[in-house]
Amino acid sequence: MSKLRWAMVGGGPNSIGRTHRLAANLDGHYELVAGVFSRDSGKNATMGKELGITEDRLYPNFEAMAAAESKRPDGIECVSVITPNNTHVPACLAFLGHAIPVICDKPIGVSSIEAIRLMREVDRRGIPFALTHNYSAYTMVREAQHLVGSGRLGKIRVVQVEYALGSRSSLVEAQGDTRFAWRADPAIAGPSTVLGDIGTHAHHLMRTVTGLELEAVSADLGSLVAGRKADDNANVNLRFVGGARGQLWASMVACGIGQGLRIRVFGEQASLEWHQEHPNELNLRFENQPNQVLRRGDPWLCERAKRGVRTNRGQPEGYLSAFANVYRDFAEVLAARKAGRAPDPLADSFASARDGVLGMIFIEAAVESSRRNGAWVEAGDQRLGATA
Amino acid sequence: MSKLRWAMVGGGPNSIGRTHRLAANLDGHYELVAGVFSRDSGKNATMGKELGITEDRLYPNFEAMAAAESKRPDGIECVSVITPNNTHVPACLAFLGHAIPVICDKPIGVSSIEAIRLMREVDRRGIPFALTHNYSAYTMVREAQHLVGSGRLGKIRVVQVEYALGSRSSLVEAQGDTRFAWRADPAIAGPSTVLGDIGTHAHHLMRTVTGLELEAVSADLGSLVAGRKADDNANVNLRFVGGARGQLWASMVACGIGQGLRIRVFGEQASLEWHQEHPNELNLRFENQPNQVLRRGDPWLCERAKRGVRTNRGQPEGYLSAFANVYRDFAEVLAARKAGRAPDPLADSFASARDGVLGMIFIEAAVESSRRNGAWVEAGDQRLGATA
Amino acid sequence: MSKLRWAMVGGGPNSIGRTHRLAANLDGHYELVAGVFSRDSGKNATMGKELGITEDRLYPNFEAMAAAESKRPDGIECVSVITPNNTHVPACLAFLGHAIPVICDKPIGVSSIEAIRLMREVDRRGIPFALTHNYSAYTMVREAQHLVGSGRLGKIRVVQVEYALGSRSSLVEAQGDTRFAWRADPAIAGPSTVLGDIGTHAHHLMRTVTGLELEAVSADLGSLVAGRKADDNANVNLRFVGGARGQLWASMVACGIGQGLRIRVFGEQASLEWHQEHPNELNLRFENQPNQVLRRGDPWLCERAKRGVRTNRGQPEGYLSAFANVYRDFAEVLAARKAGRAPDPLADSFASARDGVLGMIFIEAAVESSRRNGAWVEAGDQRLGATA
Amino acid sequence: MSKLRWAMVGGGPNSIGRTHRLAANLDGHYELVAGVFSRDSGKNATMGKELGITEDRLYPNFEAMAAAESKRPDGIECVSVITPNNTHVPACLAFLGHAIPVICDKPIGVSSIEAIRLMREVDRRGIPFALTHNYSAYTMVREAQHLVGSGRLGKIRVVQVEYALGSRSSLVEAQGDTRFAWRADPAIAGPSTVLGDIGTHAHHLMRTVTGLELEAVSADLGSLVAGRKADDNANVNLRFVGGARGQLWASMVACGIGQGLRIRVFGEQASLEWHQEHPNELNLRFENQPNQVLRRGDPWLCERAKRGVRTNRGQPEGYLSAFANVYRDFAEVLAARKAGRAPDPLADSFASARDGVLGMIFIEAAVESSRRNGAWVEAGDQRLGATA
Repeated sequence: MSKLRWAMVGGGPNSIGRTHRLAANLDGHYELVAGVFSRDSGKNATMGKELGITEDRLYPNFEAMAAAESKRPDGIECVSVITPNNTHVPACLAFLGHAIPVICDKPIGVSSIEAIRLMREVDRRGIPFALTHNYSAYTMVREAQHLVGSGRLGKIRVVQVEYALGSRSSLVEAQGDTRFAWRADPAIAGPSTVLGDIGTHAHHLMRTVTGLELEAVSADLGSLVAGRKADDNANVNLRFVGGARGQLWASMVACGIGQGLRIRVFGEQASLEWHQEHPNELNLRFENQPNQVLRRGDPWLCERAKRGVRTNRGQPEGYLSAFANVYRDFAEVLAARKAGRAPDPLADSFASARDGVLGMIFIEAAVESSRRNGAWVEAGDQRLGATA
Repeated sequence: MSKLRWAMVGGGPNSIGRTHRLAANLDGHYELVAGVFSRDSGKNATMGKELGITEDRLYPNFEAMAAAESKRPDGIECVSVITPNNTHVPACLAFLGHAIPVICDKPIGVSSIEAIRLMREVDRRGIPFALTHNYSAYTMVREAQHLVGSGRLGKIRVVQVEYALGSRSSLVEAQGDTRFAWRADPAIAGPSTVLGDIGTHAHHLMRTVTGLELEAVSADLGSLVAGRKADDNANVNLRFVGGARGQLWASMVACGIGQGLRIRVFGEQASLEWHQEHPNELNLRFENQPNQVLRRGDPWLCERAKRGVRTNRGQPEGYLSAFANVYRDFAEVLAARKAGRAPDPLADSFASARDGVLGMIFIEAAVESSRRNGAWVEAGDQRLGATA
Repeated sequence: MSKLRWAMVGGGPNSIGRTHRLAANLDGHYELVAGVFSRDSGKNATMGKELGITEDRLYPNFEAMAAAESKRPDGIECVSVITPNNTHVPACLAFLGHAIPVICDKPIGVSSIEAIRLMREVDRRGIPFALTHNYSAYTMVREAQHLVGSGRLGKIRVVQVEYALGSRSSLVEAQGDTRFAWRADPAIAGPSTVLGDIGTHAHHLMRTVTGLELEAVSADLGSLVAGRKADDNANVNLRFVGGARGQLWASMVACGIGQGLRIRVFGEQASLEWHQEHPNELNLRFENQPNQVLRRGDPWLCERAKRGVRTNRGQPEGYLSAFANVYRDFAEVLAARKAGRAPDPLADSFASARDGVLGMIFIEAAVESSRRNGAWVEAGDQRLGATA
Repeated sequence: MSKLRWAMVGGGPNSIGRTHRLAANLDGHYELVAGVFSRDSGKNATMGKELGITEDRLYPNFEAMAAAESKRPDGIECVSVITPNNTHVPACLAFLGHAIPVICDKPIGVSSIEAIRLMREVDRRGIPFALTHNYSAYTMVREAQHLVGSGRLGKIRVVQVEYALGSRSSLVEAQGDTRFAWRADPAIAGPSTVLGDIGTHAHHLMRTVTGLELEAVSADLGSLVAGRKADDNANVNLRFVGGARGQLWASMVACGIGQGLRIRVFGEQASLEWHQEHPNELNLRFENQPNQVLRRGDPWLCERAKRGVRTNRGQPEGYLSAFANVYRDFAEVLAARKAGRAPDPLADSFASARDGVLGMIFIEAAVESSRRNGAWVEAGDQRLGATA
């Protein structure tokens, strides 16, 4: 397939933008041709030059880019929105308004209200939209999803999920960590810093693997670093539709932990465990037969899990490969749309606007519960209906 | 030291009694000379014979044993109480009433009221008493305790503790699992089966390692196996005195997990992790220097951790060695008492009656919180004062 | 069963004697009643007193003990020989000469000649004899043996075995390490220090698990610490009867390794891996189905593996439990002999005199090959015939 | 930097070519503009089309491509040679003859004679040349290299290295595995299949990490699958210049192992272990202080190790990232050459022609030793001199 003409909003130096570019590079489906990388015109120019963007396609803001590119015969075919949280929805709406497909970084926004508005616009216009819950795109996560979905574990009873990292164990937002500074500002990051930044990844992972929706949460959010304005630790008890129970833990003060995203799912017949720090293995455990270790690349994995494998059996892949799966699948959706055919049904490793909305509802419910002395608060699509 | 004359209440076939006997054997400090192993006189006789108990010291019940042995010149010097939970306190009181030191299996009883009565009796009479929270006696748990206590982790912010096992994933109490049958009966096991059986181990482990006391809990207890009368899964959010937060998870339906007792403690400077399925290692993690793996037997461990090491550096020890530490330390306390000297201050690997009381308070608080929609309920010694 | 009257030769302070005593204690089958713990009469007296040996049964040397005990009506029923290597055979012969069963520490001696003499005496007189290759007595090693024996792996092609430890990485024999001082003296330890001390454990483990006998070895022994008289590192290529190939590595200079005994066996259908630092797990791997992790205590293990389990499923056991299996099984053999019945056929976790002879042949062949520029030297029972 | 015009020889469907393309894609420095992907003109055409090569730059053979491209003003700036082993040297020479820089897959060829010829040509003409020993380009391998080089381990005593995989455990070359068919043919693959295919990776890894050169080898090569013409298992004892000893094991019949490349290096002060199945960790072990686990991305790693990190601290990377390091560093060398400046001295993650020559010498020495009953055969650059 020929390369997609692609642009980026945000993604300047020292941001997650580089990761998006590497992920887009890997399979060779994207060519970065336009962008607005910073609101600072100097930084924007420097970055554009470094990335080989011609001056006429380096824009001062996303509105200008959306307007100009939509008029070019060789205009962009898709755009990645990699700005701070509070501009996600406005930027996405701007591109959707010009029928330009969007890849949006998570969380989808800063409130369920604006997220629902975006979701409705996506649905109404039928424009492809992806949210980069990249961890759910790991091949062994897809296998976990398959194992649960095919009934291998039996009915699910317990889900334990966590995203722990240590890198914000001190007051880094006051020590020059610009990546975290805006995340620690509720006005930009939304109602919960820890849940917006990493908790929603755990939330989406848990929904992806189990196929279950939350019913309610009972939460305790805390700010454990002196001087911090934002929350940085979230303990959440979970109840799922259908009766399963669980716990979610998200923490930025887990001193010494790298990127500790882990999920364990316990069913009536078996359980599974996946940990992103060793992402190529999936532990499958039983009461009545020996435990198993499934590995990325094994020929008996499901088709979804195989689709994400680019190398020989036994070779480890990592974070970039998973992230690249999102870009590869989105490219397939765009290619199919262009060709007037249905996309490969396996090309679904990315999250939808609805997933994003449910993530925002989860955050808001947890915040409310924490404020209300741990009271159980509805946290699933029953609330989506209510808000609608 | 000469062997202690020792007796057992409970501990019949297919019970934890065998473990107590192996643990007592290891260091050679105990000789089993009397017992009441079952209320069934036939089983009692068979067990007594198998264990080499002479007929005159095989008793029909603990009251008879306490009375008779206290009158013999060669009467027992200590007794282990290994009965179902609801007879722990009465049995312990019977022996304490005759000034016989007691090793009691956990949990200490079935209510904080009776536990407090027992604690007061222990304190009033000054008789040695131990509760077998055997997991806290692992050498690497003692090292973890030392690391936290000496400030190596800095102020503690987050504690994540869990005890997961899969062996009650089906309705085993109806399928001939007599060991679980009484545990699944609240009348015998107390207000929470899952917390009484395994949750208190997690609770004591967490208090031992961190030195912190609970302030309050917000809990969700559930019974996840169809037909089960008892709870089998507990999700508990924790708040500690001094501001630390945490989660405790105890589950008997963690399909495929053996004895998954694990603790992670996160401080301002470092964190640690210990897992009883690999009990000879302790992971110590930092933001500002390389992570470390401490191993049982390493010469730089603290004195408490070294005390429990019986073999060459690098040789793995397991559950029985930890359990034996409790018996060895209790023997030292009795030997010191006999000799009129202070015991080795490191011989403290066993839990006290007060620890048992706090365990019961924790259980009762969690049950109450779960009933009250997740409301935070006091769960520490402030409640001990209140009840007192 | 009543306790066996048991004695010890060697096993003084700071020796492996304590481990033998703990192992003998665990199941309660032995009572230490006599001994000669040191050639130094003062140390001997101190140790005897500490262990509760009455003065009349504390002997100045093994000859005296063998003679005296064999005449007592309550004489010892078995003895453990835990002296330096060069006195193993003389001591064993002394006790066998008085029809006293012997548990002998490994290696069996210092030459195949004397080992064969001992083996013949054992065979001729029909006295129970055990060599403490304790690592082969781990329950998961017995399961590994079962898996290979039952054909689960198919025909064996490759065997990789190693015993690495770091504790002799510096010249400890000159720094007060008395335990190693005699081991570093070829006159006492035999022709190869590293193979005698740890290599024979690897050799016996490999024979136990695979059921294969060595055909020939090509070896490179080295002394890698400046000033050391003994070898401390052995690299050995292996050829087995039937065509399998392999490597054995034994090293005392593996800086930072605790007790790194590990075996991997590769067959036509599957492979297995066991590591004594995590002894409760056995990895079973396949090309055509998911890898498995078998765990001590799992109900589907073979009877031999189950026999060594003393605790609940999922509880880790360690080095002492494995060592105790040797003592427990030897007690069963003696009990059966006394009762005139066949012993439990599963009570075979200990090595025989013949195993000891093959261990000596292996050492001598490796030493010879190393001297002969790596030439392949016969190293199995073909050589036993030749020497006979 | 602008993209390099890049071509490929070999790398057709179902080959390692895809991996080279993904690796070249990742950092965006290469644009594939020409190629000869197969000697089968149909397959060549299909592949060229799929990869977007214009018809005029799709060539029937490498000679034609070298000649034609060197004449174009927009001719290729570098080429990757990914053919079977016996055409590596001729193809490389063809491009070098036209002053076109070459990335060559390993092993460098099929004999040390031709490899030396190639090395001399590279040296004589000063054209950039890289051999894709991609495993040595992992960031944690670079850290291992740094730790040894900076003396952290002290003088090296023992090196244990292995590359085990299970995928050729059955006679796959007769069952349609075309990727292995030519490797199992000595006429194409060279004197040792197992050493050429995977043993040279282990050899290069060991030289990279330790900085030591081999002195001699004593080897046992075997063919363990019935019907196989090629060797598939190699046991090699190693002696290094300076006195270190070691073992290398390379096996294609390690049933159930994925890509088991592992190295352990033991020095006087410390040891390290790296395993490519968990490539983001490096274990560092000591006798006199706690063991450490170093992780990719940690800020205290050496500059070489940091250079290969593209993602946030704690995110795992894998095989493709390491492979991409080779392409990225080669691009930097070419860019510097073009700009007339010295390349970044850290851009050296690729192997040289000399490394390739030493790999061939190692193979030939092992084959000779195996034929000569395990005799020690010189295997280092002393032999390079001799052959020269």
